[in-house]
Amino acid sequence: MGNREQAEFDRDIAVRRTDEKTYAADLAAGWVVGGGVNGGYLLAVTANALQAHLPNHPDPIVLSAFYAGASTPGPAEIRVETKRDNGSLAIATAELWQGEELRITTTATYADLDCLHAESNGFERVTATEPELPPLEECLSSTTAPEQVKELVPMLDRYELCVPKEQFVWGGAKPSGEGVTARSAEAVVTGWFRHHDREPDPLSLLQVLDALPPVTFRLDRPGWAPTLELTCHIRHKPAPGWLKVTHFSRNLSGGMFEEDCEVWDSEGKLVAQARQLARLPRA
Amino acid sequence: MGNREQAEFDRDIAVRRTDEKTYAADLAAGWVVGGGVNGGYLLAVTANALQAHLPNHPDPIVLSAFYAGASTPGPAEIRVETKRDNGSLAIATAELWQGEELRITTTATYADLDCLHAESNGFERVTATEPELPPLEECLSSTTAPEQVKELVPMLDRYELCVPKEQFVWGGAKPSGEGVTARSAEAVVTGWFRHHDREPDPLSLLQVLDALPPVTFRLDRPGWAPTLELTCHIRHKPAPGWLKVTHFSRNLSGGMFEEDCEVWDSEGKLVAQARQLARLPRA
Repeated sequence: MGNREQAEFDRDIAVRRTDEKTYAADLAAGWVVGGGVNGGYLLAVTANALQAHLPNHPDPIVLSAFYAGASTPGPAEIRVETKRDNGSLAIATAELWQGEELRITTTATYADLDCLHAESNGFERVTATEPELPPLEECLSSTTAPEQVKELVPMLDRYELCVPKEQFVWGGAKPSGEGVTARSAEAVVTGWFRHHDREPDPLSLLQVLDALPPVTFRLDRPGWAPTLELTCHIRHKPAPGWLKVTHFSRNLSGGMFEEDCEVWDSEGKLVAQARQLARLPRA
Repeated sequence: MGNREQAEFDRDIAVRRTDEKTYAADLAAGWVVGGGVNGGYLLAVTANALQAHLPNHPDPIVLSAFYAGASTPGPAEIRVETKRDNGSLAIATAELWQGEELRITTTATYADLDCLHAESNGFERVTATEPELPPLEECLSSTTAPEQVKELVPMLDRYELCVPKEQFVWGGAKPSGEGVTARSAEAVVTGWFRHHDREPDPLSLLQVLDALPPVTFRLDRPGWAPTLELTCHIRHKPAPGWLKVTHFSRNLSGGMFEEDCEVWDSEGKLVAQARQLARLPRA
């Protein structure tokens, strides 16, 4: 794996300070998915501006993003404001604008993960369980997605996602009940994940938390599931290597669904969690 | 049950417009819990200002609140700003201030729950399961909490919470392993809940979502668990009657824990969900 300076992901999320509270970005066409730019990528761009703005607080701890409208590739401006900084934690807001259009409004808490961990005296009680996945070589890799799917979802070329064969999340196969496992009755998408040329870190995890197709793809409801709000918790610095990522929903109802995401690192640690509220795709 | 105008909860969350974007509130001493004012109550006060500010959007759909510092009883100001309004959905921010101190910064999406539901064509797939609770008369009611506990937590007099006997969340009993059920190994607090003189609605659910003691009370870690961020999803208008509320955490680690809350209404519907990231109380 190359260093961050050479990685495609880091080039694509780069920001440039234009005044005291404003950062310029160029949203990369490579992160398009259907009619917009991937929400997790946009969050990583936003977080890059926040990180530049809060040099004393190296890590995103919790971010909440409200999506006001779909973004398009091209110039964007991120307007950052520190709301509170008590030395160990900072709360800041960031708005991502394109021209006169607000795309996302984000609030975040930044801190130093190492310090938070050191203060915990090692107390640990994790009852969440790592997703069970077949070995990598038995999974379907996103690199094998048909060209017509990649044209619609250029983002598929930015990383490698390997899902169990029955999950049908690309490849042109209809995401019907055929081959669906018992667990999929609970609306689950799970896979191995890595960026091509970069190891994971707290910043890249923000993209990973919104990279997989929505669970509605498993329920015969493919199509755009617009996110209303997405909250990300970054809990540990991930170890190098493949990540396991899982999305699941327990409450699809009233035109909306909550989608929980977990990211597990190669050492079996639950390094990040997210929950979003999204609108159900139309039937 | 009386009407909303007569209810204590509604008097306590009342706001008064003071200029185009500012609302005044008087934080009630009755909602104190330990060293601060209950975060769910503060969210309901904030949402009351948001609701007054967005007359065309009757219901909170998703709110995210970042807690900057503990509030105290007395005057507060809520500064509201609409970020986007497309007619069917509005995104707005609200900051709750006391004097020169920011207490909470909130972002929210408002809409009309009935309209969102009507557009869904009745699609429903709920795999979450209602918490199993003993009958009300077999539970420990918060009305029986000892006076010294109520002095520390005056909020206990604002509602009735009835928990299974083994949960030891008040009453002076040490929240030790004694009597703890197998499920509590997963860090769970569950109970029946109602406000004394008012039926639930989307606004009051915001308080319910942060009313129970933190799950760390079950793990021999009583004490203050400061919330960094709390996200609430309001999914259905609740039916009248007792609510079932459950808190659980699957990832206590690195000095922090996520706490998920579910609220089920008397008709067995999952009406609201919340997730917060909180810091572990010190041992």
